[in-house]
Amino acid sequence: MRYEPEITTTAYERGFSKMHRRKVLGLAGAGAAGVAAAGAGALALTGRDTSPTPASSADAGGAIAFYGARQAGIVTPAQDRLHFCAFDVITDDKAALLDMLQDWTAAAARMTQGRDAGTFGAVGGSMEAPPDDTGEALGLPASGLTLTIGFGPTLFRNAQGRDRFGIAAKRPAALADLPNFPRDTLDPAISGGDIGVQACAHDPQVAVHAIRNLARIGMGKVSVRWSQLGFGRTSSTSRSQATPRNLFGFKDGTRNLKAEDTALLDDHLWVQPGDGPDWMTGGSYLVTRKIRMLIETWDRSSLAEQQTIIGRDKGEGAPLTGGLEHDEPDFAARDGEGTPVIAMDSHLRLAHPDQNGGGRLLRRGYNFVDGSDGLGRLDAGLFFMAYQRDPRKQFVPVQNRLAKQDALNEYIRHVSSGLFACPPGLQAADDHWGRSLFA
Amino acid sequence: MRYEPEITTTAYERGFSKMHRRKVLGLAGAGAAGVAAAGAGALALTGRDTSPTPASSADAGGAIAFYGARQAGIVTPAQDRLHFCAFDVITDDKAALLDMLQDWTAAAARMTQGRDAGTFGAVGGSMEAPPDDTGEALGLPASGLTLTIGFGPTLFRNAQGRDRFGIAAKRPAALADLPNFPRDTLDPAISGGDIGVQACAHDPQVAVHAIRNLARIGMGKVSVRWSQLGFGRTSSTSRSQATPRNLFGFKDGTRNLKAEDTALLDDHLWVQPGDGPDWMTGGSYLVTRKIRMLIETWDRSSLAEQQTIIGRDKGEGAPLTGGLEHDEPDFAARDGEGTPVIAMDSHLRLAHPDQNGGGRLLRRGYNFVDGSDGLGRLDAGLFFMAYQRDPRKQFVPVQNRLAKQDALNEYIRHVSSGLFACPPGLQAADDHWGRSLFA
Ligand code: HEM
Ligand code: HEM
Repeated sequence: MRYEPEITTTAYERGFSKMHRRKVLGLAGAGAAGVAAAGAGALALTGRDTSPTPASSADAGGAIAFYGARQAGIVTPAQDRLHFCAFDVITDDKAALLDMLQDWTAAAARMTQGRDAGTFGAVGGSMEAPPDDTGEALGLPASGLTLTIGFGPTLFRNAQGRDRFGIAAKRPAALADLPNFPRDTLDPAISGGDIGVQACAHDPQVAVHAIRNLARIGMGKVSVRWSQLGFGRTSSTSRSQATPRNLFGFKDGTRNLKAEDTALLDDHLWVQPGDGPDWMTGGSYLVTRKIRMLIETWDRSSLAEQQTIIGRDKGEGAPLTGGLEHDEPDFAARDGEGTPVIAMDSHLRLAHPDQNGGGRLLRRGYNFVDGSDGLGRLDAGLFFMAYQRDPRKQFVPVQNRLAKQDALNEYIRHVSSGLFACPPGLQAADDHWGRSLFA
Repeated sequence: MRYEPEITTTAYERGFSKMHRRKVLGLAGAGAAGVAAAGAGALALTGRDTSPTPASSADAGGAIAFYGARQAGIVTPAQDRLHFCAFDVITDDKAALLDMLQDWTAAAARMTQGRDAGTFGAVGGSMEAPPDDTGEALGLPASGLTLTIGFGPTLFRNAQGRDRFGIAAKRPAALADLPNFPRDTLDPAISGGDIGVQACAHDPQVAVHAIRNLARIGMGKVSVRWSQLGFGRTSSTSRSQATPRNLFGFKDGTRNLKAEDTALLDDHLWVQPGDGPDWMTGGSYLVTRKIRMLIETWDRSSLAEQQTIIGRDKGEGAPLTGGLEHDEPDFAARDGEGTPVIAMDSHLRLAHPDQNGGGRLLRRGYNFVDGSDGLGRLDAGLFFMAYQRDPRKQFVPVQNRLAKQDALNEYIRHVSSGLFACPPGLQAADDHWGRSLFA
């Protein structure tokens, strides 16, 4: 039970209630020294030792450290649920935006540690002001919540070509607008966005609560452009996890980049010094694609056809050239009639790094069902998310090849697209989201 | 891991693959004698002892008995996730519809016990036919899955006034079309439906999988009219459960009908002998209302206002007249100025049985977030579901009162409505959904 009559208040409150602001505890005293640099996700929230539920306590219900060299939510073992939100910035006032980002950071640091503002009716809470927290996650543990922020191309120059915040020069070359791919059927209303926030947790109520509170804190400065709930992960990002199944019923994420592949991560995931502007060094680029899956059509196709399209068997997830799930595919193998065992237009072959100049992705997608489509079918599919060091060398060539040749295309439609530059993690409790970008 | 090379096949397969149908084991041998009547949810699946994961084994991952005097999924302690689907019957062929309902029953009996058809590439499975199961729940336990079926008014007489299946005379009077309520803003495209199926489980992948496989088995006979995912329960249906919170941040379900209130259940939940046609005796009526919640507006209102509107405090969930969550509200209490402590237009007062001729409901709703609304707001709310003995005496008067006076109305919009007659449970493995109705 996290409902605490006496609780530390934070900078978080500044955004929406002036009536019960109290001394911001724990922030002033915790500089960079107290919160030294550490490996991804390894750093506990030392600046907040007045916290009723410290990150390390069992009470926190699986809290994942918010501060660290990397943002949490990338190599963090993929949680079960997602709420992704793309925001439009609706103010041109840079100071107001920065202020909001600072409030967001405090709220994120707090919520990821399983702490509500929690002052309903208690000392310090005001009856005449909106509550400090929307409350629907009261009593729920942190549930592995991570909040990962990224900045979209339009933040640097908006649709009207205006550099509203004087940061156009800081736009990384790798944050190039994605090209139009063959067969794209994108809906602009659910694509793009100035700021993207990925909330992942084991409990959807916790992920929804986090986004909703950021939206609330951001009132008047940002508005929700689009949002997406994902109900089941479709990838593993750690060898400690079993491979889940996507809505085509196949194991997905077998050959993903994983947290343990540290050398590969430097090559393919994390932006390296010299790659671009400093503010992105240690960060990563996120591509989101909402992919509608025509599951009714798929469900009518034979098992043989499904397996040929994917290039793996459906039960075990092994390559069609045999063995077990994690065995290497043999792309050269041919059957008695000389036909390649793994078809030339199979997803496995076309998405494989060998076909794409070695480029790999850290996929972190989720299944979605958004009701029905009015044509008697479920509106379901994959909310694809992939992190990478440079989309121009990774997502773009792979997707170009898939869009042209993938046998899967008959069964899928890309309906939304997003691109976000996700900076490195925050390492000091007085740092905040956007500081290095706007500095 | 539920992937089994040797597995019992069932009537379930008949609907979509003639190529590998095998003897339907376990059904012929298990008549009513072997599966005698029992209390709600107490009856194990004795007709299927060849099952690789019997209902009673720990392997089944919290399987809830499918057979019993009552349908599971009503007083069953509310699971965490929902996938609700309303189907339209698109055939006029009664035999085809009955055949499908029989296949659905076999599939439901199997899936609720955590068993996939699971013949991908295995003995008995054909490579040239669509797989026996879509596969995305392979390896997942039963996860408390319940499937609860109900029949809508349009099954008895469709929108064109036709009694397609010769059952109009069997329509219960209690299945009267709901009236138009004040302030209704219903979208017909996501309202109504000939058949409703509620899938609840602790894992959304399992609930989605179940509905999707019913849709697949029903191809050509039914089509998906609308479907709704719910990510978090908003009610408790058993004293063993803690009260969850809805998206307004309040505890919801405090004064719900609960499984333990056996005497009340006969009065308010279960259709009694003589209430109407025999096929509904022991069943219950389900009303669904998708209620959009204007959470951004709510989040701007003060704590005092929120509490006055609900009639309870936000932290503890106690009535504003004091005490703890489960204490009785004192509707007569007035403050020093003579104002009722629990406001006349508060939700608590208006929904209370005393105001509604004693009528009570078993609420079993879920939170939803369906992305955003294109106006910068989350498209979120409550998918309200309530079971009852007679909607004319329960839901209708309560909703009439609420729609006219509830202070909550400023913050909510009813956007969809459904009504379904849910028959009693199946007590014999050779019985099936719809048999008593169509007999
Ligand atoms: C609905 C659409 C998609 C489905 C159902 C799907 C499914 C799969 C499956 C079942 C696998 C094999 C298991 C694994 O290694 O993870 C796979 C692998 C892969 N997919 Fe997809 N995928 C989809 C879209 C995409 C897109 C849009 C991309 C990138 C542009 C992509 C990139 C990859 C990559 C890189 C691999 C690993 C290939 C390897 O290294 O062997 N997929 N996908
Ligand atoms: C978004 C819409 C709604 C919200 C946010 C909401 C919220 C609540 C809350 C917080 C409570 C108090 C806790 C409890 O006893 O469960 C409650 C009670 C109740 N609500 Fe609602 N409710 C909504 C819609 C409805 C509707 C449409 C009905 C029926 C027509 C309804 C019927 C009831 C009943 C019968 C009670 C219990 C009253 C008592 O016995 O004390 N509610 N609701």
